[in-house]
Amino acid sequence: MKIAVLGTGTVGPALAEALDALGHDVVIGTRDPRATVARTEPGATGGAPFAAWHAAHSRIDVVTLADAAAGADVVVNATNGASSLEALTTAGAENLSGKVLMDVANPLDFSQGFPPSLNPVNTDSLGEQIQHAFPEARVVKTLNTMTASVMVDPASVAGGEHSVFISGNDADAKETVRGLLRELGHRDIIDLGDISTARGAEMILPLWLRVWGALGTGAFNFKVAR
Amino acid sequence: MKIAVLGTGTVGPALAEALDALGHDVVIGTRDPRATVARTEPGATGGAPFAAWHAAHSRIDVVTLADAAAGADVVVNATNGASSLEALTTAGAENLSGKVLMDVANPLDFSQGFPPSLNPVNTDSLGEQIQHAFPEARVVKTLNTMTASVMVDPASVAGGEHSVFISGNDADAKETVRGLLRELGHRDIIDLGDISTARGAEMILPLWLRVWGALGTGAFNFKVAR
Repeated sequence: MKIAVLGTGTVGPALAEALDALGHDVVIGTRDPRATVARTEPGATGGAPFAAWHAAHSRIDVVTLADAAAGADVVVNATNGASSLEALTTAGAENLSGKVLMDVANPLDFSQGFPPSLNPVNTDSLGEQIQHAFPEARVVKTLNTMTASVMVDPASVAGGEHSVFISGNDADAKETVRGLLRELGHRDIIDLGDISTARGAEMILPLWLRVWGALGTGAFNFKVAR
Repeated sequence: MKIAVLGTGTVGPALAEALDALGHDVVIGTRDPRATVARTEPGATGGAPFAAWHAAHSRIDVVTLADAAAGADVVVNATNGASSLEALTTAGAENLSGKVLMDVANPLDFSQGFPPSLNPVNTDSLGEQIQHAFPEARVVKTLNTMTASVMVDPASVAGGEHSVFISGNDADAKETVRGLLRELGHRDIIDLGDISTARGAEMILPLWLRVWGALGTGAFNFKVAR
């Protein structure tokens, strides 16, 4: 499957690498490919500089947001949640039309320090904002409830015995995403319903952040025990 | 231990019954005891009318909010989250002073229909509002992340393999609550930190509500898999 991963933080490269390893045809989309591949400062969460990551994964092309989206069957939004709408606008509505748009971002607002606030909440979500802004895209919210290493290697935590949620309006798009999640190793995939249910999946972030603080590690995930 | 359970919805009687069965000296506090024990309409979630419940549990006295709190070592706030501050004010700050105040309520706003919104969010929580309004009480937020039947019988779901959170400023109060949770059968008790971390525990409710919708049952709980 041709997959465009938009975003070059911690999550984007992790997903790109994992999907490439599964045999998909993966590109990374970024605002300025030349500047991105030249980046030698460590990632925001202490990961490898993008230049070093790219040298080790040169098979994965780094292209503009628009070029990435244009050539893809599935577009993954792994951009910073606070600027996802802007990044997707740059990618181009015409390049997202009809595509499965897997949204893994969280609308975290760090302007008042740590822990960040979540915005919007309750009556809206980033997932819905994206669906509203790009009505021809088939948005599926997923994976936003765990850290990048668990997204791509669920077995690394509790033998993979935990849950992932999907929200979206398009049944076929959800089936495509469900398939990708299974390929990544996720076994308990809970369909919450339409894209408005992304409100729930996003609003777990404030708890995620505090559990992370309590445990001292992001290597955990929520399981819906039942 | 002398325990006052404030609230006569689904949660209050369930907790009162379970704590009584464990040998604690339990009373239920309500605004108007005479009206409460006369209630013959079914509970909001389809449970037994309070009159029938009380007939079967006559050992548990039903008294005013103030009388209940005055005689207790531990006060459980199981009132409707939207009116908890008012109920606790009626119970009386002087009757809460120095007490462990176990807050299990959620500030859900049903005024716009279902699913309810959560208010406050992000920068405040009901747990903090209660601690702020009653600075001499020792508030511990807990149990608000699961349905009443799971609060009192964790083994009823996945053999008890799931998590409960505690948030509070007073280490001794948290130890008291931890002890009560263990007596109820909870094994994975995660201390999130001070009372401000109740923001996280409360903000899981929008996801809880949607998982409930997806599964068609409240008989589940979140486990922090790690």
